[in-house]
Amino acid sequence: MPRRIAIIGANAAGVDAAAAARKTDRQAEITLLTTEKYSSYSRCGIPFVIGGHIPHFSDLVVFPSTYYKMMKLDLRTETIAKKVDAKAKTVEIQDNKGSAETLQYDSLIFATGARPFIPPIKGHDKHGLMTVRTIEDGERIDRAVENGAKSAVVMGAGLIGLEMAIAFQERGLKTTVVELLPQILPAMLDADMAKSVQEMLEQHGINIMIGQGVEEFLGKDKVTGIVAGGKQVDADMFVAAFGVRANTELARDAGIELGPTRGIRINQNMETNEPNVYAAGDCSECFHMITQRRVLPQLGTVAVRQGKVAGTNAAGGYSVFPGCLGSAVTKFFDTEIGITGLTEFAAKKTGMNIVTGTMSGKTRAPYFPGGLPIKVKLVVERDLERVVGGQIVGGENVTPRINALSIGIQKQITARELTKADTCYAPPLAETWEILSLAAEAAIVKLRR
Amino acid sequence: MPRRIAIIGANAAGVDAAAAARKTDRQAEITLLTTEKYSSYSRCGIPFVIGGHIPHFSDLVVFPSTYYKMMKLDLRTETIAKKVDAKAKTVEIQDNKGSAETLQYDSLIFATGARPFIPPIKGHDKHGLMTVRTIEDGERIDRAVENGAKSAVVMGAGLIGLEMAIAFQERGLKTTVVELLPQILPAMLDADMAKSVQEMLEQHGINIMIGQGVEEFLGKDKVTGIVAGGKQVDADMFVAAFGVRANTELARDAGIELGPTRGIRINQNMETNEPNVYAAGDCSECFHMITQRRVLPQLGTVAVRQGKVAGTNAAGGYSVFPGCLGSAVTKFFDTEIGITGLTEFAAKKTGMNIVTGTMSGKTRAPYFPGGLPIKVKLVVERDLERVVGGQIVGGENVTPRINALSIGIQKQITARELTKADTCYAPPLAETWEILSLAAEAAIVKLRR
Repeated sequence: MPRRIAIIGANAAGVDAAAAARKTDRQAEITLLTTEKYSSYSRCGIPFVIGGHIPHFSDLVVFPSTYYKMMKLDLRTETIAKKVDAKAKTVEIQDNKGSAETLQYDSLIFATGARPFIPPIKGHDKHGLMTVRTIEDGERIDRAVENGAKSAVVMGAGLIGLEMAIAFQERGLKTTVVELLPQILPAMLDADMAKSVQEMLEQHGINIMIGQGVEEFLGKDKVTGIVAGGKQVDADMFVAAFGVRANTELARDAGIELGPTRGIRINQNMETNEPNVYAAGDCSECFHMITQRRVLPQLGTVAVRQGKVAGTNAAGGYSVFPGCLGSAVTKFFDTEIGITGLTEFAAKKTGMNIVTGTMSGKTRAPYFPGGLPIKVKLVVERDLERVVGGQIVGGENVTPRINALSIGIQKQITARELTKADTCYAPPLAETWEILSLAAEAAIVKLRR
Repeated sequence: MPRRIAIIGANAAGVDAAAAARKTDRQAEITLLTTEKYSSYSRCGIPFVIGGHIPHFSDLVVFPSTYYKMMKLDLRTETIAKKVDAKAKTVEIQDNKGSAETLQYDSLIFATGARPFIPPIKGHDKHGLMTVRTIEDGERIDRAVENGAKSAVVMGAGLIGLEMAIAFQERGLKTTVVELLPQILPAMLDADMAKSVQEMLEQHGINIMIGQGVEEFLGKDKVTGIVAGGKQVDADMFVAAFGVRANTELARDAGIELGPTRGIRINQNMETNEPNVYAAGDCSECFHMITQRRVLPQLGTVAVRQGKVAGTNAAGGYSVFPGCLGSAVTKFFDTEIGITGLTEFAAKKTGMNIVTGTMSGKTRAPYFPGGLPIKVKLVVERDLERVVGGQIVGGENVTPRINALSIGIQKQITARELTKADTCYAPPLAETWEILSLAAEAAIVKLRR
């Protein structure tokens, strides 16, 4: 009898898990379940559709329905998984017409994702608070802009919040961002690096209020304003980008253990505590390559990689997920911003004794016109002299530089080794001395103290 | 008495050696000698001045004379080192007015560079064969174009030859490139990768003749044509870019050993066989990080790094050069081309049992407009499954990707580890799955066979 694999969730983790399962077992019966209308689309692309960089929301759908047919995947959209019985190995499902079914599985993968979180602030139950998670969310926001919204408040200055604020600014809305913490991008950048990014956003006309929590949602039935830091800010639209929470209720109710991060607890094979039950993506934990602690990165890149490992194992193969470094990147107007590993703040919080090395430069030889500014901050652990993190803000070439650092960190590169890296150069493309090496040099000087 | 350090050569290796020596020993008397009028300029920039990307040749000078004063470096331009006595520790020098002097040194660094090589082809002693090494060479070529040259033949389809051909094409000359070997960029790319680059150059109007050696230089006193592959090609200008030869005569005459590459033999501290005598840059060998063989990379990036190690050691410090991978990159029109480590051809030549993995993709998410094509070829050694080389041709982001690979290779990354790298992504900046990881995946499939 063919192996039956059920996958709950059909986005980054779920669809990559299904593909890996299919490659591992050509005969398996693979069922993909999603409550959404769309599957396998890029959530990360939503702000860029709203900002006008990508023509249509439908462009975000990575795989057409023919893909599922070709891969022999039984995709069930707008279908909810109501209950999992891990002993009986069943999933109770219900489609949007109300018809129920019980699926029997041999392997199950939770790829249930996460959902936007709105803190229980006074007035949070009023209408009109928008979130940015699904294509439907994106369409709703886009319609509001089309219908003449002139101003927006974004709550939360993380990646999604700021990407949305930029999209609104690009659409001509008067935009305010409110952030409780005393800096923007608190999970991604140290305060010193975040400051210049904030100034750049402000120069583009975005109003940013840091260190000011949302205290109240104002308005009769519908939110028409907020109070933050004692000040009232009125607007036509309100987007909640406070963060996301892993969707773990279905797993927890089935006896699947959660970890300290409140994500589903997994081992290196993406197995949960229940035999033949796996988890991957935003709902699942991940070991951090440096700290070895359990973290909840909730990144698309991690989701696809975890999905691939979970799918391979669920189909009888063997694959290990080596952990993550939280590498992430974005583009704000013409500036690229990236992180890998630990920020100085995060490293110190784990008790690590570190030094940092910061270097500013240009992306081309000094005599070659058109070079753009770039700034690198490295975090180096004192005892092993390992590089444990890096942040880069620059005009170009940030993304693959983050990957270069990430690969180095994965292979436990020391700051000294990084100063001696065999980097390449050509006048139109780089400076002779690679800025990553120069930042490592700056850290080494402090290591000697 | 302060330490006396003499450095023969004042370009990439020499000037970086001087800077490192100064940082290591604040009191040392450091003398830099160069036969040229200019010092510390970017040779790599010369084709880009001729092509019109950089306004003036003088822009290529990286350090002004005030730099040498600030660093207390005794720079002597247009001064020739005529003889080194390694036992007596002296250098006999002569300036351009003919006045001679004997310098006494405690440490000596050969940073004598390399010079263009013209094979003894029939007619090679005629006037008018131009080379591209010094600013004066560049000025001479630029004058010839200014004076109305309408066509050019470039001999040699290596980096410099092709960069010059592109510069001529950009200046409106009818340009032909002649290459003895059956492909362009033979030291940098495998034939399969070189082919698409050649086609791109041909689409830009450059005439490329591969597999055709120059058989004769035609003309009365001055070269007016060549014969290559039996065909006569006439032109107004002829540029010899056959390659360079290390300047080692001065060292050899002083009893300094040369290695199998005919570069100056050095150890990991850049020491020659003579105590207190170092070598760095284009005149000096280098251990290859993968093969552990001695190679002669003759790259600016290697020169500055070797110079730094030699200068530190010459001044009483301790520094090790960990070897090189031959990482190099260039930009031809809008295409970036890069290499690190071994090509398939080079790996096989060393007797290595390898597989390759090739992957084509885009530089942005498929749904984000403006993504440019990019192609990666990885070379993976079968036994340890180590990545030993990579070639990339693409529209953007090639340079830091080469560095990412180079850092991985330096840290002995395996193909499998590369498939699990914690890479980052955002729709305007990259695809979800990093193309380096996908190319590694393609290689792994072959490893299993």
